[in-house]
Amino acid sequence: MTLSECAAWLRARDNFLIITHRRPDGDTLGSAAALARALQSLGKTAYVLENPETTPRYLPFVRELHAPDDYAPDFVISVDIAALDLFPQNANIYRSRVALCIDHHPSNSLYSKDALVDHTRAACGELIFELISLLGDLDVATATALYVAVSTDTGCFSYDNTTANTFYVASKLAEAGAPVAELNRVLFRAKSRGRIAIEGVICSQMEFFYGNRAAVVIITNEMTQRAGADEDDLDNVAAIPVSVAGVEVGVTIRELAGPFDCKVSVRSAPGVNSNDVCARFGGGGHSAAAGFARHEAAEKIKDRIVAVLADFLPGDPA
Amino acid sequence: MTLSECAAWLRARDNFLIITHRRPDGDTLGSAAALARALQSLGKTAYVLENPETTPRYLPFVRELHAPDDYAPDFVISVDIAALDLFPQNANIYRSRVALCIDHHPSNSLYSKDALVDHTRAACGELIFELISLLGDLDVATATALYVAVSTDTGCFSYDNTTANTFYVASKLAEAGAPVAELNRVLFRAKSRGRIAIEGVICSQMEFFYGNRAAVVIITNEMTQRAGADEDDLDNVAAIPVSVAGVEVGVTIRELAGPFDCKVSVRSAPGVNSNDVCARFGGGGHSAAAGFARHEAAEKIKDRIVAVLADFLPGDPA
Repeated sequence: MTLSECAAWLRARDNFLIITHRRPDGDTLGSAAALARALQSLGKTAYVLENPETTPRYLPFVRELHAPDDYAPDFVISVDIAALDLFPQNANIYRSRVALCIDHHPSNSLYSKDALVDHTRAACGELIFELISLLGDLDVATATALYVAVSTDTGCFSYDNTTANTFYVASKLAEAGAPVAELNRVLFRAKSRGRIAIEGVICSQMEFFYGNRAAVVIITNEMTQRAGADEDDLDNVAAIPVSVAGVEVGVTIRELAGPFDCKVSVRSAPGVNSNDVCARFGGGGHSAAAGFARHEAAEKIKDRIVAVLADFLPGDPA
Repeated sequence: MTLSECAAWLRARDNFLIITHRRPDGDTLGSAAALARALQSLGKTAYVLENPETTPRYLPFVRELHAPDDYAPDFVISVDIAALDLFPQNANIYRSRVALCIDHHPSNSLYSKDALVDHTRAACGELIFELISLLGDLDVATATALYVAVSTDTGCFSYDNTTANTFYVASKLAEAGAPVAELNRVLFRAKSRGRIAIEGVICSQMEFFYGNRAAVVIITNEMTQRAGADEDDLDNVAAIPVSVAGVEVGVTIRELAGPFDCKVSVRSAPGVNSNDVCARFGGGGHSAAAGFARHEAAEKIKDRIVAVLADFLPGDPA
């Protein structure tokens, strides 16, 4: 589907429900909120399915757009969701009836009836911005939601995915009234005590392999608790190991509910494909950022992934 | 002077020398390099005066544009320099003959014959971009220099000075071929192992007072050595304590040569005046950033400064 086909598709329909992905981030929430608002301002009925894992950090006002409990949508739209297994629990009933998927992940499994997928966009929010530009005007709240989407998925425009178009979109969102300074302060500059403490632990526990070309850190539940860090504080910690100069691939292994329930995040510089690394473990994502889940002790996973990295960083793993 | 008057002024003249400010940053160096290149590509003679304090961190290629020793310019241009006392030592001979000053500081003292000053621009590089757009095309090297200027003066687009125009300029620079991903990695994302390690120590050693409104950290020589951190790695660590959410004043006490030779840096949010805090110890600086030196054990200094903060953050110091 092209952007204008997608805009026409939306214009011709009504009664939408918009779904965000598990462990929602700024891009999925911002994209959903912006799309819902834009459709509502065209006189249509559109809601965002409440994401049980949503935290207020990114976008408190997404709440105002949540679907009533008894809402029966005619068209289900997923935003920023690459595959069905990334649906939150309460969205599983819609798995077989997604009418439209709007996404920017190259690994998108094309599970929906129609799809607008463009992996050249740094954020799904870029696609939503362009769609909304075709549908009507951009108000302040919509611009705010889209700025959250675009800025968070690019690490405040610092990640490799940032393009001329990303900056162009940001300029239009700022022009439309998105409170850039305030959002930047909340999203990127202010750090909670829990965040500062967990960053301290991560920085001191990090291990290096392959002549410092790979960095791996394990975040146990005990470390998290001792640091007083909550879920929000752990947001995007996966970006830390690869930020060390010379490191080409950074791996973060995080214990979730129990010690054998781990989430692994891989981040890489050009030259190492994170998606390919994670595919070895049944996961996926982008070339610079991918992940997988695994039921195994963190130390075991570390050993496995360090071994696998030999195929990506030839040389002695010491 | 308006932008187009300034462009006409440049077009009508030749034999330029461009001066950067003391302790040069990305904005002054990037602006100077871009302007020199743009003038050269118009067939004019234009050089940048070598800045004795330049480090290669920001812009290695500015070196290619340095003026020969015997260069006798007809027109001296200063970029990003608010006042004459910010001239580097070797530029002092030009103090009385600056023909044109291009700057974005509100405090600009208008010391030059002509001036293009606009304090609504986040970076001087934004003004240079617009000038160059009026003069001709933007090549990759010029776009690179300007991206360094604009991105460093806005903390990679995260500071409060970032505007819609800043983003617009960045989009045009990316379009013109500035290697955004590479520059972001070098300027904002890459951290040395020593830096990562010392940040880890700082984050875990930080102490909080006055209901988390004050944060204090001591950096001993032993901590620095154990982290393998050098002087560069300690650059701007004073910004860390005040970056904690809710903290209004952050104090960094660093041991220098010996344990009784300390440098104290104070950073504060609006509402607490760092200069006033440091004045109590014979130091000074700006309202948001100040410092002092003291011959006393770090722990003693900490106790003293926590006590003094009672006058700035009324309440129980616990």
